[in-house]
Parts: sequence; C-alpha cells; structure tokens
Amino acid sequence: MNALGKHFLIELNDCNRKILNDIVAIREIMIAAANESGATILGESFHQFSPQGVSGVLIIAESHLTIHTWPEHGYAGADIFTCGTTVKPEKAAEIIIEGFHPKTHSVIQMYRGTAKTKKKITK
Amino acid sequence: MNALGKHFLIELNDCNRKILNDIVAIREIMIAAANESGATILGESFHQFSPQGVSGVLIIAESHLTIHTWPEHGYAGADIFTCGTTVKPEKAAEIIIEGFHPKTHSVIQMYRGTAKTKKKITK
Repeated sequence: MNALGKHFLIELNDCNRKILNDIVAIREIMIAAANESGATILGESFHQFSPQGVSGVLIIAESHLTIHTWPEHGYAGADIFTCGTTVKPEKAAEIIIEGFHPKTHSVIQMYRGTAKTKKKITK
Repeated sequence: MNALGKHFLIELNDCNRKILNDIVAIREIMIAAANESGATILGESFHQFSPQGVSGVLIIAESHLTIHTWPEHGYAGADIFTCGTTVKPEKAAEIIIEGFHPKTHSVIQMYRGTAKTKKKITK
C-alpha cells in the first residue's frame, strides 16, 4: 500500500485497572512506545481526570500517539499514527499492549493519505 | 451502538496548499472545531516541519483532535476522538473540512470501547 501514513487503532479490554488510572505509569508506557519504535517526541500533553481516567498525547516528528483510559470499564483506546519508513508502529503497539496487560485486545491498521498523486514521501 | 468513544478519521485530499503549510491558520481551524463542537480544550501541541508540513494535537476533556498535513501532496489527515454526549464530533468534522477546502474528502466513523461490561458512561 502506497500511503503517506499508517494508523493503528488499538482497543485494550479488561486491562490492569490500577495502571489505567496511573498517569505516571501511562506516560512512561507511551514514551517508551514512542522511543522504542524509533519516533522523535516533539511535545506531550497528559491529563488526569476526576474521579478517574487519563488522557495523553505525544506529538512525534512522524505524527502522533494517543491514549485514553476508562478505569471503570477496564478499557483503554490507543492510537499510533506514523509516517515515513524509519518508525516501527508495530513496536509501539507491542509496548502499549504489554504495558496495559489487557485480557483481550484488537489492532486495526488503517492507511492514511492514499489518494496522493505524487509518490515521494518527504515528511 | 453502545460505545465509550466515537472516532472520526478524516481524509482531506487536494486541499488549499497555502493553508496546509500555515500553522497559525491550522491551529485556528482546529481550535474552532473543538470549540464549536462543544469540547473543552485542556492542552495543545502544534509543530511546523521543514521544508513543509504541520502537525497538531488538541487534547480535550472529551479525548482529542489531531491534524497532520502534507502540503506537497495536497493532503491532510484529521482525527476527532470524542466521548460522552455533549460534544458533537460531526460539527468539528464539518469545520475541519470547510477549513482546508479539499476537493475530495472522506470520513470514516469508528466506535471505540465497545467491549465494556458496564453501560454507564462516566467520562
């Protein structure tokens, strides 16, 4: 597939509930996922919700990683959007899945930017 | 569909190329999209790439909005991930599509967090 971007949509079900509400642990998982995949982190924003739940985004030179958790449902939804050939989103997905200890999970891979007329990927 | 989150994946093709490389204009479009949809912005990170391209994320109380542009391909990929019933992601999508003036576009809607065991949406 000749696409500008790869997008992994990850559903994490029946996760470790303690981790789902631990903003420090979640930030560490997401940063490890970005770093181990070969991404360059440019910015971040993580938020703890009351009474529970964490949202976080990492903007990377190669697009983004996001996470949203619902501890009350044991659920987290993660997204990995990458471009170029140097970053390995599969590796980031692996680290995120391992980090949340879900009993079940799914990964949907979407291709983004497939309608382009030029083939050179410069970003 | 009884889901925790709604996720719109928006492909914007053959956009106004000047806008695709204008970080100020792009930030304004994304903030307008968040505000007009009823979202509460908690954080942001926007980056200009060299020689071209812009990436931006808005973390909102109801999840996130992201944008990545490839001016050289006339393309932008936007994501709107929302939860709860007060935010209208359709409105955010409308504003983003209008803002980039694409000749063609597509919107895929995904439901996130559909495997939960409890039905109450508290986040």
